[in-house]
Amino acid sequence: MFSRYRKLNEKDSIKYIKEKMDVFGEDENLISREIGDGNINYVYKISSKDSKFSVIVKQADKILRSSGRELDTDRIRIEAEAMMHQGRCKEGMVPKIYLYDEIMHAIIMEDLSEYEIMRKSLLENNIYKNFAENISSFIVDTSLATTDLVIDPMDKKKMMKNFISPEICEISERLVFTEPYFDIDDNTYEKENEQFIRENLYKNSKLHLEVGKLKNEFMTNAQALIHGDLHTGSIFVKGDKIKVIDSEFSFFGPIGYDLGNIVANLFFIKIRNYLLKDNSREFDRWLTGTVESTVDLFKEKFLDYLVVNTKDKILKSPDFHQWYLNKVMEYTSGAAGLEVIRRVIGSAKVEDFEGLEDKDIKSSAERIAVKFAVELILRRSSIKKGLDYIKVFERVIEEEI
Amino acid sequence: MFSRYRKLNEKDSIKYIKEKMDVFGEDENLISREIGDGNINYVYKISSKDSKFSVIVKQADKILRSSGRELDTDRIRIEAEAMMHQGRCKEGMVPKIYLYDEIMHAIIMEDLSEYEIMRKSLLENNIYKNFAENISSFIVDTSLATTDLVIDPMDKKKMMKNFISPEICEISERLVFTEPYFDIDDNTYEKENEQFIRENLYKNSKLHLEVGKLKNEFMTNAQALIHGDLHTGSIFVKGDKIKVIDSEFSFFGPIGYDLGNIVANLFFIKIRNYLLKDNSREFDRWLTGTVESTVDLFKEKFLDYLVVNTKDKILKSPDFHQWYLNKVMEYTSGAAGLEVIRRVIGSAKVEDFEGLEDKDIKSSAERIAVKFAVELILRRSSIKKGLDYIKVFERVIEEEI
Repeated sequence: MFSRYRKLNEKDSIKYIKEKMDVFGEDENLISREIGDGNINYVYKISSKDSKFSVIVKQADKILRSSGRELDTDRIRIEAEAMMHQGRCKEGMVPKIYLYDEIMHAIIMEDLSEYEIMRKSLLENNIYKNFAENISSFIVDTSLATTDLVIDPMDKKKMMKNFISPEICEISERLVFTEPYFDIDDNTYEKENEQFIRENLYKNSKLHLEVGKLKNEFMTNAQALIHGDLHTGSIFVKGDKIKVIDSEFSFFGPIGYDLGNIVANLFFIKIRNYLLKDNSREFDRWLTGTVESTVDLFKEKFLDYLVVNTKDKILKSPDFHQWYLNKVMEYTSGAAGLEVIRRVIGSAKVEDFEGLEDKDIKSSAERIAVKFAVELILRRSSIKKGLDYIKVFERVIEEEI
Repeated sequence: MFSRYRKLNEKDSIKYIKEKMDVFGEDENLISREIGDGNINYVYKISSKDSKFSVIVKQADKILRSSGRELDTDRIRIEAEAMMHQGRCKEGMVPKIYLYDEIMHAIIMEDLSEYEIMRKSLLENNIYKNFAENISSFIVDTSLATTDLVIDPMDKKKMMKNFISPEICEISERLVFTEPYFDIDDNTYEKENEQFIRENLYKNSKLHLEVGKLKNEFMTNAQALIHGDLHTGSIFVKGDKIKVIDSEFSFFGPIGYDLGNIVANLFFIKIRNYLLKDNSREFDRWLTGTVESTVDLFKEKFLDYLVVNTKDKILKSPDFHQWYLNKVMEYTSGAAGLEVIRRVIGSAKVEDFEGLEDKDIKSSAERIAVKFAVELILRRSSIKKGLDYIKVFERVIEEEI
């Protein structure tokens, strides 16, 4: 019945799941609800009224709903294959995949209803003590396994062929590395900041040069299979566990891009709370500690992983590993800066700032974020450990007062 | 008749050419001669006894004759596609392709009998006044056209997929970037130099670190479609013309690798002539000038090309172009050093040194070459123009006296 691609709807998705899997009984009462919030995929949650069991069906749309533009559905294959890779490297940190259906461009996977989206939960100032530990392990284990130091370089190249993703990379290259630096209509910010944005982003040729270098590396450095869009909206949390989702931006790129995205997204809530002044001390202490230890644990685990797993004999020395890590850390800082800027003024905003109702607070948040981000980009070669991010942030805050 | 792969022989190759092309008359008297010297391909020259016309058939073997190991014939598709790309960018600098046959893994192409292999001709101290001009244009035009600055990045990624070449890259990664730095049986050199090689190559941890960085970049930096094996044995010369052949090592890698290989191979004849003392002043002046202007013309044309052709707006500034060029120049020096070392002690030797009959001269040549090469690798960030190579060479010569 589903032997040719067609867009599912809620009713269809029930038939689909019954045909494809036998987790539900033939007569079991199922309900389906579209819970996706994007505009390129459909996400159905299908649950049994009888048992408590539920699954997710994620289907790639062939068109971008907002513009009607055609989109390559190959991204859902990449998402499925990336998740399978991540699951092999870091069992339990991604949803289980029950089925990847290349005809329907759909993935049937574990439902994570008991988890919360991390971004939302951070807005409620919930603390996740294990987060730094989890996410640093996730990035180290899933990415380093695909570097030339570790995997057989011939296998890496074959794998790379499978993860070349022209359309998806083009989106990042444009939204992250280009548009925020030019005065275009898609950029929006508080009117008060117009002059500020012009000076600090549009007319900042020193910044443009560094963004160019970072973009060039994003486009050419096939270092490892990375997630490619690892923000707090792509992470589910529950107690001491995380589940990483939405790997459709996966490709062979610089490892620091993923870590930088995490760091950037932790700072949105930090800036928000700082300006709202209503955050608990405990949460802020945890958040600051989490920024620091995400970076520092990453570094520690990175080197530990390489000591044990490097196979290439000329890439095996501690000196080489340290140099390799330094490059990753430099890119991390740059990527964090890029992510902050594009989320503040670009078309993909974050709730942390969008939810700020007071105009003065919002415009102050934008300025703090942009100043912080510009520092991260320009001084990235000297930002080497977790504390360095906090120090840059504090310096920017002092200037803004 | 040739609808399934089979290895051609001289007789077969005549039938083959008559079936595939109508450049020869049905009754024309043809002779075929195997003229290849490698051990992974067969090269037949098929000429008419009646007319003067001749063509080349190059066929990929499925096994490495020396070891019996299986080899992926995909390399001949890559060679054909790379040559077609080069021909589009730089008409007349590669042999014309008449036919690429994906079943027989063969290319039928222009015969270059009137040309000479550059390495051989340099051994006779022949001068090619136009060489620096030609080769600098060749590298600039064929490689930059495939960088993210110039080509549509989506097209680049699709093209890259087509040029991923695991087995062929593995050969370079091993022969150029690994084996010469470890004491293995395949490395050979004058017995007298044993201690010297041990100290300067095998036990030189500073060098190993830098070779590691260069290897890492070779494996990850998908900068542009490069030739991948651009030595003077892959270049045919005649008067003011060149034809570049043997692009089977083409892949998306660092541009400096190609330029570095050219520079390295010019120095083999320079070192040889210096030690034999029988070179004409005119040839040496030309050779020195050619090293300098190959590098300097490359730099000039590189920037000129980018000014005109860069499309990406954040990669368009003169500052970015200069930074981008500096990186290429740094890699060039490193790659030149690597090529010198692997040709001196690795398994793929060059006639320039192999032909030195006097043991003392040969061992002196090895030492000069290795010292020169180590300098190029270690000091690559300060070797920025043609004259810098000459200066390093002269310093090494002075020390050796």
